[in-house]
This record gives sequence, structure tokens and C-alpha cells, in this order.
Amino acid sequence: MTRTAVIAGVGPGLGASLARKFVAEGCEVGLFARSADYLEELADELGDDALAVPTDITDPEAVAAGFEAVRDAFGPVDILVNHASGGSWSGLRDISLEAFERAVQTSAAGALLCSQEAVGDMLAGDGGTIVFTGATSAVRGRGGAIGFSAAKFAVRGMAESMARELGPEGIHVAHVVIDGGIETPSVRESRPDRDEAAFLDPDAIADSYWHLVEQDRSAWTLELDLRPYVEEF
Amino acid sequence: MTRTAVIAGVGPGLGASLARKFVAEGCEVGLFARSADYLEELADELGDDALAVPTDITDPEAVAAGFEAVRDAFGPVDILVNHASGGSWSGLRDISLEAFERAVQTSAAGALLCSQEAVGDMLAGDGGTIVFTGATSAVRGRGGAIGFSAAKFAVRGMAESMARELGPEGIHVAHVVIDGGIETPSVRESRPDRDEAAFLDPDAIADSYWHLVEQDRSAWTLELDLRPYVEEF
Amino acid sequence: MTRTAVIAGVGPGLGASLARKFVAEGCEVGLFARSADYLEELADELGDDALAVPTDITDPEAVAAGFEAVRDAFGPVDILVNHASGGSWSGLRDISLEAFERAVQTSAAGALLCSQEAVGDMLAGDGGTIVFTGATSAVRGRGGAIGFSAAKFAVRGMAESMARELGPEGIHVAHVVIDGGIETPSVRESRPDRDEAAFLDPDAIADSYWHLVEQDRSAWTLELDLRPYVEEF
Amino acid sequence: MTRTAVIAGVGPGLGASLARKFVAEGCEVGLFARSADYLEELADELGDDALAVPTDITDPEAVAAGFEAVRDAFGPVDILVNHASGGSWSGLRDISLEAFERAVQTSAAGALLCSQEAVGDMLAGDGGTIVFTGATSAVRGRGGAIGFSAAKFAVRGMAESMARELGPEGIHVAHVVIDGGIETPSVRESRPDRDEAAFLDPDAIADSYWHLVEQDRSAWTLELDLRPYVEEF
Repeated sequence: MTRTAVIAGVGPGLGASLARKFVAEGCEVGLFARSADYLEELADELGDDALAVPTDITDPEAVAAGFEAVRDAFGPVDILVNHASGGSWSGLRDISLEAFERAVQTSAAGALLCSQEAVGDMLAGDGGTIVFTGATSAVRGRGGAIGFSAAKFAVRGMAESMARELGPEGIHVAHVVIDGGIETPSVRESRPDRDEAAFLDPDAIADSYWHLVEQDRSAWTLELDLRPYVEEF
Repeated sequence: MTRTAVIAGVGPGLGASLARKFVAEGCEVGLFARSADYLEELADELGDDALAVPTDITDPEAVAAGFEAVRDAFGPVDILVNHASGGSWSGLRDISLEAFERAVQTSAAGALLCSQEAVGDMLAGDGGTIVFTGATSAVRGRGGAIGFSAAKFAVRGMAESMARELGPEGIHVAHVVIDGGIETPSVRESRPDRDEAAFLDPDAIADSYWHLVEQDRSAWTLELDLRPYVEEF
Repeated sequence: MTRTAVIAGVGPGLGASLARKFVAEGCEVGLFARSADYLEELADELGDDALAVPTDITDPEAVAAGFEAVRDAFGPVDILVNHASGGSWSGLRDISLEAFERAVQTSAAGALLCSQEAVGDMLAGDGGTIVFTGATSAVRGRGGAIGFSAAKFAVRGMAESMARELGPEGIHVAHVVIDGGIETPSVRESRPDRDEAAFLDPDAIADSYWHLVEQDRSAWTLELDLRPYVEEF
Repeated sequence: MTRTAVIAGVGPGLGASLARKFVAEGCEVGLFARSADYLEELADELGDDALAVPTDITDPEAVAAGFEAVRDAFGPVDILVNHASGGSWSGLRDISLEAFERAVQTSAAGALLCSQEAVGDMLAGDGGTIVFTGATSAVRGRGGAIGFSAAKFAVRGMAESMARELGPEGIHVAHVVIDGGIETPSVRESRPDRDEAAFLDPDAIADSYWHLVEQDRSAWTLELDLRPYVEEF
């Protein structure tokens, strides 16, 4: 069975690893991000099984059009990864209202819009899976990062609310707490002397996302954490 | 020592009990709410120690003006209760983007603006106390209440972030998880046959808020929960 | 109303502060500890309102006799603090089975025995309050302290179980997470150059325990945390 | 690569599913349980890749002998599942000290002894994986089940402590929160009219245990929960 997935918030790190993994497992994947540049490059790499959909996920009309494009290409959506994140690394004393609201909008309101589109398809079909990318700041508010903490907590609250609303309808909602830095290309370039063991391999993270997709509905996970073996926590 | 308090989000339930308790303990209190009607009534009851300040706390200019009015009347702010809450009791499938964003704005963005005003005063003085009113939906996302869950989780993340940022500066940030219904006048009126034991007495809640204000800085609480003795949880 | 309290696990730090606070608030207090030396000294200081009861709280007969002595002196027990703690600061690779079991017995089995005695009195009377002293290691297992972590987690599980069983019967069960070092006489002596701000004042902790005792049953706290304002967490 | 696994606490439900899954994935498995009867039956089913090791895991000498038998048959241990559980379903008012201590001993002390044996092998080799079977009562103390709650909390504290101690040494420690009833043969027999959707399929649980074993060390999970899609939580 070919499944259709949407990954909202694709960059060259975890988003790309998720796309590659999902295609390798037989999915067709819609790639959402604000900017088209990297999306096109990744879609070229992945070939016919991927579609680049430049989309501002905080704009309801753009989200609707993006999902429509995916449906036209691949059919109704079975899998959604809410992966976009608008981090603002300021504390209470420094953050502007605008930066605070943008952080919450990108993470939470964007996930709301994408989930509403996806859930319609899933309820009309055989259910589906929605995975939220979380962070340590979703379970432990970080000093000096009030917008990021508020946004990540909000997303975790949404995931729990949706799991309770939609689980009995056959939609698996999960939240992944990523505890540590991900080894993206930009990390590799900017920190050549880093301790590699201290970073999460995005391909390894993608394996756990895929496990969530594959779980039998008699034993679904709402939340799991992921961290490098050397991470202090 | 007379302390100045602001209670943001005052209605005839817990907000009024907090105001009465704070005045009884020697505070002068600024009462914030969107609508003036009840504020004036409560301010009349409390006399010279209270000031009604009709304020839309999601509007930065209104918040600034409100705090200025309190400072003019009573001096710099020592205590802030972020008590406003914009609940939307809809699930993912029913909520509009507008209702979702309003919930987050009233609870989270409003608390951000009020906290920024208050923290300025506290840092210039001898520190202070900021208490957030939370709910069970701040620690456990509720099915069918995605906006409320997102907003309450966001507020808890803010409280934790602020506690870590501001604690060492002498500002005590606390988050109270209220687990159950509060016995407000409207509850008393609309549910005359209720089991009274199943509701929290707002005066009893106010005692615990005041305890947070009075805690010595060598032993501050970040979070406590409150529920009626008969509550199942 | 004079209330009778038992503090199980009294030393010159928090145990002594609790005893002083409870007596100051009008309680008569039974002081339990394995060794008699300090108990006698503290009982002498507190006068007629305190009774030294040297007791091995892991021994059922000793616990029964100890509670009987308190009842004879002061009447049925209204308040119990389960404060004893058998810490073993070894990791998995170093701990012996004996040390592991002793840690769990002192903290958990001792609290079970004391609680069973106290609850009988409370159910026959007007209810009561049972407070457990917890630690950060009750909510976050500490590397290199497997016995202490197991014991403190176990105690927290007991407290939650008891709160759910006994709350509707009018018994308030609470668990206090103490996050940081307490400024005991031995700390003062052994670490004269310490940063005092980094330690919890035991008298300040005792104020919060007393607040738990005084809470109205319409708004009981199951858990609160306490830490110095400068503590990183 | 053939890996050696020990499953401590094997019965015809999840233990058997784990054994079958691990053998299917190429492991050789030592099966531990107090009673030999079912172990022999399962070992016969699994053939040369399984060894029945009747063992009282609360007895240090028996545990040592059991691991030695596994090493003799299959080589050093790479994977351990601490699955034994001694539930006592009584509340504070009804439980005996003996039943309380037995619950903690079977779950916690048994896991300590097995882990100490396994960790020696893992440190001498290429690391390994230790999975603890937890329950909802490990994260939320259950009223009327104080021994079970204390034991399950204790085990979770041990798992966290061990994860922090042993992760950097290359040993992956994980804790699985099973939230709901498992569809064992005895459940199938005794409750023929049950709603099957309300039970966890033990084979599905075993898939997630195996995923934990297979995770790359750059992205290890400490904790995940599992529940049926219809479960209210």
C-alpha cells in the first residue's frame, strides 16, 4: 500500500531525513516549507515520490492549497509530520510581542491548520498518523527562551488533546521530545571540531518516527523522547 | 510594608477572592479586566485600597497605561497574578483559527505583556512575586479543548521559563494547577443542587496564593496543585 | 484546638524546624528517630508539648508502641510527617542488595507503618494530614544513586496512591519535593564558606508544611516543590 | 550478529511474545520465571534458541546461577528485559508489610540483581539494552494499590538512574509505560465477551521493545508509553 505523507517544515536536517525514510518505506511525500529553494533540491533527489510545496503554514489559504496539491499528485493524506518550529531565543525581558506571537503561530497555529486538513482525509479513509516534533523545552520551560518554551509547550498540549479526541477515531497522534542538537549539514559545516557523539543523527530520529507510523493500533505511543547516549539530562 | 498588587483578569470568582485576600493582608490592588462593570463594584467594596482598571490585556498600549495608573495610585508593582484565561472548548475538528489564536493570546500574550510591565518594577525594587493561574489542562491536554489546552500549556511553559530567568533576580514565579470547578457566584446560582464538596472555595485558593507571596526566598515553590478533597484525579 | 502530630525521622535540621513550628502553632508533637540522643535534647527544648520516642520505624512493633506512647501523652494523632530517609549514594554497579533494600525499607516501608497507625486515628476522628518529604530524586532518577532514587520514587507513588484512597475520607496526603540542600547545623559547621543563598532554610520549609496542614479541604495540594531562589533547575 | 537476551519474568502473555519476537530477530533467549512449567513449554516451542531457566529473581545466588546458565548456552548477555512484577492490589488500610515488601522486592530488587549481572557482560562487550516493563501506576499512583504503585514508581526511578549512569557507557536503558490490559491467553479465556479493541496485543508491544533494542545510540529513548487506540487516559 502506498501511503501519502506531508512533512510540514522541511529543511536539510531532520525534515530531509524524514522524507528520505518515508519514500524508502514506500510513501509519496509532500514537502512543505516557506522557501522553495531547498524543497526543489530535495524533491529532485527523491524523484516522482516527492512534491515540493512552498507554503506559509500560518496562512489558511496557502495550507489548503498545499494539501490540495498533494492530494492531486498522490491522493488523500495518511501521514502528517508537524515539524515546523519558530524559535525565539529571548527571555521575558527582551522578547517583543511580535516575536512571541510568531513563535506560537509558526509552531502551534501552523500545526493546527495542517492537522485540520490532514484529519479530514484520515477520517474519510482508514485513519492515519500525525507526529509532532517536540523538544526538551516542551516539557521543561527554558530560562531565556520564553517564546520557544511557550510554543513548544502549546504544541505538546495540542498533541495530547488531539490524541484523546482522535485516537478512538483511528488517528494516531504522537509527540517526540528531541533532547539535544541534531547533526544537520549546517552543524557539520559550522562546528567541524564538535563531539559527534553529542548530536542526534537525523536518520536515526527518522527511524523512530517511522516506528510510530508502523505501530499497531492496539499499542500506540503518545510520547517518546530521543537523545544521544552521551547526553546529560 | 504596603505592597502593590495587580490582578489581571478579575471576575466575581477567584479574582475577587484574591483581591479581598490581598487587601486584607495589607496590599493595594489594581484590578484588571476587559469590562468595567464588575471591576467598579468590587473596587467600591474594597475602598481606597483597590483601583478598577478596565484593560484589554492583549493590547500593549492598554497594558502600559493600566500599569501606569496603578503606579500613580499605589506605587511600583510588587505582586502580579496572571489570571486571565480565554477558553475555547472545541476540538481540532471544530475550532476556528481565530478562536485558537484568541485563546492563546488572552492567556499567554496577555500574561507576557503584564509580566514585562511588572518585572520592570520588581527589578528596580526588592523583587516580587508573579503567580500564574493554571488548570489541569496545563499538564494534561484535554480532548475536545485544543485551544484551551494549547493556551494553558503555553502559560505553564512561560512560567517555568520565567522562573529560571528571574528567580536568581529575586522574582518568585509560580504556577498553580487548579484541578476542579471553582464555586463562583454564577455556579452557585446556576447549579443550586450541586455537591458543594466537589467545588473549590475561591477564598481557600486565595490562601494558597498568599502563601506563595509570603514564602521566604530560600524555599520558593514553582508549582502546586489544588483540588477538592473529594475530587477524583 | 490542640492537634497531635508525629514527625517520623527527626534530626537537627528540617525535623527540628518542623517540631518547633508545629509546637508554635499549638500542636503537641511526638518525635520519632532511631537514636535517642538528639530527640531528648529537642524534647527538652520544646518542653511539655513534645515527647521523644526513640523508634526503629521499620519495625512494626516499635512503630505501634511509639504511636501508643504518643496517644497516651497527647491523644489521637492528627498530623503525620513521613520524613525518614535512608539514602544510599551508590550506582547500580556499586550498590549491594542490602543497601538497596535498606534504602527502600527506611523510606517506604517505614512510611507505610507510620501511616497505617496514623490513619486509624484520623479516620476515627475528624480526618488529618500526612506529609511526605520528597526530593528531586523522587521525580528525576539520579545517576549514581539508584537506591535513593528507587526509595524516593516509591514514596512518591505511595503518597499519590494514599491521596486518592484517603482524600475522600478527609485525610489530606501531600508530597513535598525539596530541591536543594537544607541548611542544617552540620552543613553550617562543615561548610563555613558556602553560599548561604544556595541552601534551603529549614524554618522556611516548615512554613510550607504548616500551610499544607492549614489548607481548607476544598483546595488541597498533593504536591509542591521548594528550592532556593538561586537554584538552577 | 546473534545477540543473547534474558527475559526476566516470563509468562504466556507479553513475556512469551517478547521471546518469540527476539528469537525471530535472531536472538538466543534465556527465559526466567519462578515456576518451570510454562518456561519448558515455551522453550520447547522456540527450540535451540531458547533456554528455560527457572529462577527466583529475588535470590542473588539463583540470579547468578541463572545468568551463568545463559552464558554457558549462548554467551554474554546483550539484552535484558526486567519484566517481573509482584502486584499487590490493596490500599494502605489493607496491605500487610509482607505484601508491600514482596511487591517492591519482586519488581525492584529483582530488577537490580538481574541488571547487575547483565551490565557486567555489557560493559565487557559492546554495550547492550535493558528494558523495564512499567505501568500507568509507575507515573500515577493508584488509589487502592499502594504496594503496586510503590513498586512501579521505584522501578521507574531505577530505570532513570541507570539510564544516566550507564548511557555514556553504551548501555541503553529504557522504561515502557503500558497503559491498559494486555490480551493474554488467560484474558481471552476468562473474558470471551470483552471488547478486543480495549486490550494491548502483546505481539504489538514486543515490536516496540524490539525497536528500542534496534535504536541507534545517537537517538535513544528513555521512555515511551503504549496503549490501545480506544483507551481513555
